[in-house]
Amino acid sequence: MTDPPDWNVFVRTCPSRTSLAEIANKWTAMIVIVLEPGPLRFTEIRAAVDGISGKVLSETLRRLERDGLVERRSYDRMPPHVEYELTPLGHSLQAPLDALRVWAEAHIEKVLDAREGYDDRMARR
Amino acid sequence: MTDPPDWNVFVRTCPSRTSLAEIANKWTAMIVIVLEPGPLRFTEIRAAVDGISGKVLSETLRRLERDGLVERRSYDRMPPHVEYELTPLGHSLQAPLDALRVWAEAHIEKVLDAREGYDDRMARR
Repeated sequence: MTDPPDWNVFVRTCPSRTSLAEIANKWTAMIVIVLEPGPLRFTEIRAAVDGISGKVLSETLRRLERDGLVERRSYDRMPPHVEYELTPLGHSLQAPLDALRVWAEAHIEKVLDAREGYDDRMARR
Repeated sequence: MTDPPDWNVFVRTCPSRTSLAEIANKWTAMIVIVLEPGPLRFTEIRAAVDGISGKVLSETLRRLERDGLVERRSYDRMPPHVEYELTPLGHSLQAPLDALRVWAEAHIEKVLDAREGYDDRMARR
């Protein structure tokens, strides 16, 4: 019996690097957070994630579906009805991604102060 | 007295959106994680984050410095010596970002299975 591989995002060829790239992404974070309470339609996600383009949303949803984080359900009825829902794997990502949202909102004033200070220092050089 | 603004990453014009974009990023995550134990030089960070280009590393470090997450210290000596160190604000990001790394490494086998299933389904269409 061989040992399971040691997955390590710091190794460029490790598949876990591609997974980190997918989840450490602002659109992924916002989509997973808005899907946490329950399934939504494309237009509902787009309305909730202010500013996302239709192209980026559909590409991101496709990647999330391919990675097993989101399930796409289409219902045969008129008009056609498609919903996106987190899988159990997707739900397991909600807490870590929401922690980033909380951090961003809680610390933005410090970040803005830092940017102002940095830009002032650069301007005085 | 006016109320403080309600920061909300879901509003495209909210400054916290730019902060989420900066931190929800694979390079930011890896750099913050490798800087957690203590200051490192540029070449040391580059060696630890396998596959990052010099250009991306220097741009990311500059953004992290501007946002107040990293401090750049240069020592006047020969040869010149520059170190990068997390600020207290940067240290506060380590736990949420490391949670993403842990998730990526822990769930990659499920993600790889999902990708294989998805690609099979697409090929059979």
